[in-house]
Amino acid sequence: MDIIPKTIKRAIEELSKMPGIGPKSAARVVFYLLSKPDDSASRLGESLFNLKKNLKTCHICFNYAEEDPCIICQSGDRDKSLLCVVEEPLDVIALEKAGFKGLYHVLGGAISPINGIGPDDLRIAELISRVRENSDTIKEVIIATNPSLEGEATASYIADRLQDEPVKITRLAHGLPMGGDLEYADELTLSRSLEGRREM
Amino acid sequence: MDIIPKTIKRAIEELSKMPGIGPKSAARVVFYLLSKPDDSASRLGESLFNLKKNLKTCHICFNYAEEDPCIICQSGDRDKSLLCVVEEPLDVIALEKAGFKGLYHVLGGAISPINGIGPDDLRIAELISRVRENSDTIKEVIIATNPSLEGEATASYIADRLQDEPVKITRLAHGLPMGGDLEYADELTLSRSLEGRREM
Repeated sequence: MDIIPKTIKRAIEELSKMPGIGPKSAARVVFYLLSKPDDSASRLGESLFNLKKNLKTCHICFNYAEEDPCIICQSGDRDKSLLCVVEEPLDVIALEKAGFKGLYHVLGGAISPINGIGPDDLRIAELISRVRENSDTIKEVIIATNPSLEGEATASYIADRLQDEPVKITRLAHGLPMGGDLEYADELTLSRSLEGRREM
Repeated sequence: MDIIPKTIKRAIEELSKMPGIGPKSAARVVFYLLSKPDDSASRLGESLFNLKKNLKTCHICFNYAEEDPCIICQSGDRDKSLLCVVEEPLDVIALEKAGFKGLYHVLGGAISPINGIGPDDLRIAELISRVRENSDTIKEVIIATNPSLEGEATASYIADRLQDEPVKITRLAHGLPMGGDLEYADELTLSRSLEGRREM
């Protein structure tokens, strides 16, 4: 394949390292960019090139931000009695779309002994002191880590560490996904949705 | 969604304009880049930013190239008696992988009256003169436009225009894709593979 110009090859290689993008989709994107008469390629290139340069981490919630504290932590419109603990910044976007109006705390991952990630590698100590220092405002800590082995372990660990604080500790409900089909649900989800059944 | 930093939003927007990349996969890529401690983001950004700057079009075959004429047109190792006509530069890569050893001619698309693309918008005139001027070397023109309505129309048009030239004109075989299943083949493909049947 040495007939492909190096510039094209390099762009395809870099793009196909991205999650969910294989060599074929990478090639499609690169040739699409080449076929466009406008400056899409340099616009996209520039926006990725500057991605990290313009961003910092909010020292309160540890989400990506352009200012520190971030817009959410600075805002007067958020419900400061609710603190939602998530693994990653992407989870914040998902919860925003779902209409959550409280504050966030981004852990930066989940406890995973296999991958060598312990509680000290996450922002758990920062969470504990944040809850302690704001005990007059924070009434409920919603643990919204992923419904995975690691996410569950992290949730239990955090619940343990917070048990002496005067806050309510909750976990996102497990159950059937909306629009899903009962017969395709896995056993664990189905048993969780039975346990969590609600009166109508 | 105005809680998302503008830098992130812009990168997601630019990425999700790409073919096959929706807003969700774009967000995944952007947050993956943010989570990487190395300079993947700027490396990818730079490679896309420079994509078009470093490339020209080969004046012989109209493929993208870093030099003009391109490596293939310059090479002494290719079979100069075979000229393969394709719609797009991506098709060249596919044919290279399939082991084709001749020369190429990139049309830049296919005739498509609906999209306002006529023969004059493609490199058809250039193909005709290339075949004429190289009648001593080019023995066969393989028309490898796509097996679509537009590709077929373009193939017929080119075959017509070349009929008085002293070259053999061929078309890629239509038939069952390898590894495919007979019962899932569409009628047209199946009827074409019957017409094109070969003795064993």
